[in-house]
Amino acid sequence: MVGEQPARQDVSPAPTALGLSQGALSPEMTAYFAKCEEKLGYVPNVLLAYAHDDAKLQAFATFYNDLMLAPSGLSKLEREMIAVVVSSLNRCYYCLTAHGQAVRQLSGDPVLGEMLVMNYRAAALSPRHRAMLDFAAKMTEASHRLEEEDRQALRAAGFGERDIWDIAAVASFFNMSNRMASAIDMRPNPQYHGASR
Amino acid sequence: MVGEQPARQDVSPAPTALGLSQGALSPEMTAYFAKCEEKLGYVPNVLLAYAHDDAKLQAFATFYNDLMLAPSGLSKLEREMIAVVVSSLNRCYYCLTAHGQAVRQLSGDPVLGEMLVMNYRAAALSPRHRAMLDFAAKMTEASHRLEEEDRQALRAAGFGERDIWDIAAVASFFNMSNRMASAIDMRPNPQYHGASR
Amino acid sequence: MVGEQPARQDVSPAPTALGLSQGALSPEMTAYFAKCEEKLGYVPNVLLAYAHDDAKLQAFATFYNDLMLAPSGLSKLEREMIAVVVSSLNRCYYCLTAHGQAVRQLSGDPVLGEMLVMNYRAAALSPRHRAMLDFAAKMTEASHRLEEEDRQALRAAGFGERDIWDIAAVASFFNMSNRMASAIDMRPNPQYHGASR
Amino acid sequence: MVGEQPARQDVSPAPTALGLSQGALSPEMTAYFAKCEEKLGYVPNVLLAYAHDDAKLQAFATFYNDLMLAPSGLSKLEREMIAVVVSSLNRCYYCLTAHGQAVRQLSGDPVLGEMLVMNYRAAALSPRHRAMLDFAAKMTEASHRLEEEDRQALRAAGFGERDIWDIAAVASFFNMSNRMASAIDMRPNPQYHGASR
Amino acid sequence: MVGEQPARQDVSPAPTALGLSQGALSPEMTAYFAKCEEKLGYVPNVLLAYAHDDAKLQAFATFYNDLMLAPSGLSKLEREMIAVVVSSLNRCYYCLTAHGQAVRQLSGDPVLGEMLVMNYRAAALSPRHRAMLDFAAKMTEASHRLEEEDRQALRAAGFGERDIWDIAAVASFFNMSNRMASAIDMRPNPQYHGASR
Amino acid sequence: MVGEQPARQDVSPAPTALGLSQGALSPEMTAYFAKCEEKLGYVPNVLLAYAHDDAKLQAFATFYNDLMLAPSGLSKLEREMIAVVVSSLNRCYYCLTAHGQAVRQLSGDPVLGEMLVMNYRAAALSPRHRAMLDFAAKMTEASHRLEEEDRQALRAAGFGERDIWDIAAVASFFNMSNRMASAIDMRPNPQYHGASR
Repeated sequence: MVGEQPARQDVSPAPTALGLSQGALSPEMTAYFAKCEEKLGYVPNVLLAYAHDDAKLQAFATFYNDLMLAPSGLSKLEREMIAVVVSSLNRCYYCLTAHGQAVRQLSGDPVLGEMLVMNYRAAALSPRHRAMLDFAAKMTEASHRLEEEDRQALRAAGFGERDIWDIAAVASFFNMSNRMASAIDMRPNPQYHGASR
Repeated sequence: MVGEQPARQDVSPAPTALGLSQGALSPEMTAYFAKCEEKLGYVPNVLLAYAHDDAKLQAFATFYNDLMLAPSGLSKLEREMIAVVVSSLNRCYYCLTAHGQAVRQLSGDPVLGEMLVMNYRAAALSPRHRAMLDFAAKMTEASHRLEEEDRQALRAAGFGERDIWDIAAVASFFNMSNRMASAIDMRPNPQYHGASR
Repeated sequence: MVGEQPARQDVSPAPTALGLSQGALSPEMTAYFAKCEEKLGYVPNVLLAYAHDDAKLQAFATFYNDLMLAPSGLSKLEREMIAVVVSSLNRCYYCLTAHGQAVRQLSGDPVLGEMLVMNYRAAALSPRHRAMLDFAAKMTEASHRLEEEDRQALRAAGFGERDIWDIAAVASFFNMSNRMASAIDMRPNPQYHGASR
Repeated sequence: MVGEQPARQDVSPAPTALGLSQGALSPEMTAYFAKCEEKLGYVPNVLLAYAHDDAKLQAFATFYNDLMLAPSGLSKLEREMIAVVVSSLNRCYYCLTAHGQAVRQLSGDPVLGEMLVMNYRAAALSPRHRAMLDFAAKMTEASHRLEEEDRQALRAAGFGERDIWDIAAVASFFNMSNRMASAIDMRPNPQYHGASR
Repeated sequence: MVGEQPARQDVSPAPTALGLSQGALSPEMTAYFAKCEEKLGYVPNVLLAYAHDDAKLQAFATFYNDLMLAPSGLSKLEREMIAVVVSSLNRCYYCLTAHGQAVRQLSGDPVLGEMLVMNYRAAALSPRHRAMLDFAAKMTEASHRLEEEDRQALRAAGFGERDIWDIAAVASFFNMSNRMASAIDMRPNPQYHGASR
Repeated sequence: MVGEQPARQDVSPAPTALGLSQGALSPEMTAYFAKCEEKLGYVPNVLLAYAHDDAKLQAFATFYNDLMLAPSGLSKLEREMIAVVVSSLNRCYYCLTAHGQAVRQLSGDPVLGEMLVMNYRAAALSPRHRAMLDFAAKMTEASHRLEEEDRQALRAAGFGERDIWDIAAVASFFNMSNRMASAIDMRPNPQYHGASR
């Protein structure tokens, strides 16, 4: 046979490329990990990555859970849609894998998940969602060019002041998280790939 | 519930955004479509897109089949890997969907397919495959900067002169095909999404 | 004398930087080369480049001749104008030389040929040609951003559905051909440079 | 006099362009604001921006203070240097103003602060600092291209695994914070401009 | 103490990184330097940089003084504002330092000077100044895309034909001067940093 | 006939798109124009463009003539080669036309002129010329990334300190001149196109 067969990619590596071992976890974080195991069957590798330092893990988890799960004018699915579009522009393997799965699951539409990973402009989106994702994309690619007219476009699509905050907060967060994941080569849990297809 | 539920994306649209209807097919192309139906269960939408003009369809199919299926120092999987990496850089929804599936199927490794769609630098690749994909990526992003040292890097990874031709030909072709698909909004057959997961 | 005199560039190198020798040609391709010699006085180096493999040569020539010479709502000159603008954005020495000459010849206007090589925005173009070239430029630089409004701009300039296909097909093709030429360092026949000035 | 005199820029606007009013603060956050007033003479506008929602304010403050003030192999000045270089690449007016002042103050070297705002490559930096800032710059501009060799460059400059985490965490954070500030047009407290000059 | 303290940046280096010593100055240039010393307390390093060749120094000084000081529909401050915005986009340490100081001094508004160094889109500008700076920015980032509609935008903001020439001339000049300064690593006089704060 | 014939481009427009009429010329500039007519048969349009203001014309001509004609370690051809490569990267129609002709004439090699207009990396260049043009290209595309190692590469190719100044000065100048020409739509004299082919 000509050519060379690529090695399989689905071995279980350490959660990151850094040689940091897990530190002592507080009771609160121990309980959080147990809850992940119970609900998901695994602890997401992003949490294992932070577990070398309990204070950092707790700060990250609190920040993340407020952002993605607290009451908001944006649904959880909408927040995940922003996460995927930002991660697509930053080409972050970890976040595309984990949050692409979340979009597939929350929407019940695997094709939507794929489209947001590949090119959100290919999807048939409502004006609300298109405005939301265009704002997140501009934040990712050229935040220094954002001006009042960009916020006005969100208001014209029906978003209120607090919604604009939430869109900005989610898009900003994944611009952090994508870069952290790429900088330390964070590897997603293998369970995401086949789920919700 | 706050937020807005996105509409499902998996309806079956026309194969492209252009209003071109299928023309009369030659016996050869009629047989080719029948063979696709028999082997795959469907005619790939890229072929339906060209079917408005039998001469164009035949020229495209002949060119494509020689490129991707003729004997070569590159395996069929390696040619599909190049297709996916080029399509990822060009963010082509059609080609990522169709050729991402081909990589999953030919490699038997769904994770590899996902990685090449998202960011090929995240994959654990042999020196041969890394050199091959780096060359294809440079061809896509900055072909005017290609110089003899880039070809030398392929030779150093074990590729011969004809292999270099084949890498260049496949990477070039998908720079055409990605743009054609985006320009006319070509839509992939829905069967690709769930296959080989 | 201060400085250093550059060596002359017009020696006749091999048609490409690859060490591939010409293979056996089919009667059809032999006749095609003879026709080139008769009509042009030479075989274009792009054909000599493909001549290491008769099947590839034939597939390329068939595809190319349908694209550039078959009946179309675009004139041959308009197709060559697209070829030059795409090649200018990709900075492809081979295609700018060969197709720049074609624009000079077909238009009888050497200045137009130069402008399209250098910066098509400097030319005084009709709305039809400006829309056509703007679409080709966007296909070249950011195909993933093409949307229905870009196709609408072509329709507004008077192009029909099949014309849009043809614009897309020519612009796509030269995004392939430019990259192939740069990847293998294809060298243009010296006759192009002085012709139609 | 010809020309037009620009209006003065130093009026005191609201902390952001969004119409969000301050919410009820928890005792912990009330005490934190009081401590800011006491130590700095003002509450940084970034905190006032988050104060529309006590949970978000608390999550942000906790995350930020761990990142920038907790024990680390990076000094507080080094963390501020990263903050300024990331903010320079993202052209974030808020963060350049606030953290540029921090570099001037912590280093006692106003010229260093200016250089990092303008172009860190103009500064005379130790190999440690150059490696640290080059990594942060690549994280900002092309995080998808980060690979093991980039982490190796940090190790070669003397950084340990935890230091790499901390560099990555600070550079990631300001890629979030810059975008949040630009998206909501956060305005810096006027006190920063003249301080530590 | 963890981390490493950066060395102070404010030592007085040679005016450039090139090893060129000052040549014999003409009486005219000798007088010009004396006038600088008298009025400013120093000779700007850009002039010392050119002083290795009296003819070049004189040509530069004449060109510069006509550009920035001759009668014009643009005030001196407006010309300095263009200088800073162009230098910001080119990230030129020398010119940002020297002309940032000039904006602070001529406007009496240190915050305006900072904003133009960091991101002119953050400043509250009149329509005249925004149009002027947008034109200068496009000249800097994508001059090949400038077309008649860009000049029309200046006319619509009240600028006459000669004003357009002057805006173009100043923006062009700093695209030269920024590159000269970066190419030879020109260092600004230390006096600029603290002045007009 | 399908398609639309483009209008001829070679009409004689005003030297620029601005409505500025020629001012009174000093005896020195009158003599200079007469000399141009005598030696070239025309006054270059760039000079006619500046002729609305005698002081600006004189400053420009003096600066330009020192740069391109004064004694230097770079030959006149080498200075023109830099001019063309910079103008190619900036896609300046005026300068590519005028200085492309100069390279063809001074080198006696029309192919070299074409290559520098299209993509200087396609030319067979000596190490001296490649280093010189790579430096000029980096100055044009990313001057803020220039560092001592770039100057060292010039020294390694045999250039002295004054030669580095001259390379930097010529490359800087055309970054000015390209932008001025594009900003005011300067049109080249028609004589350049057919000359030295």
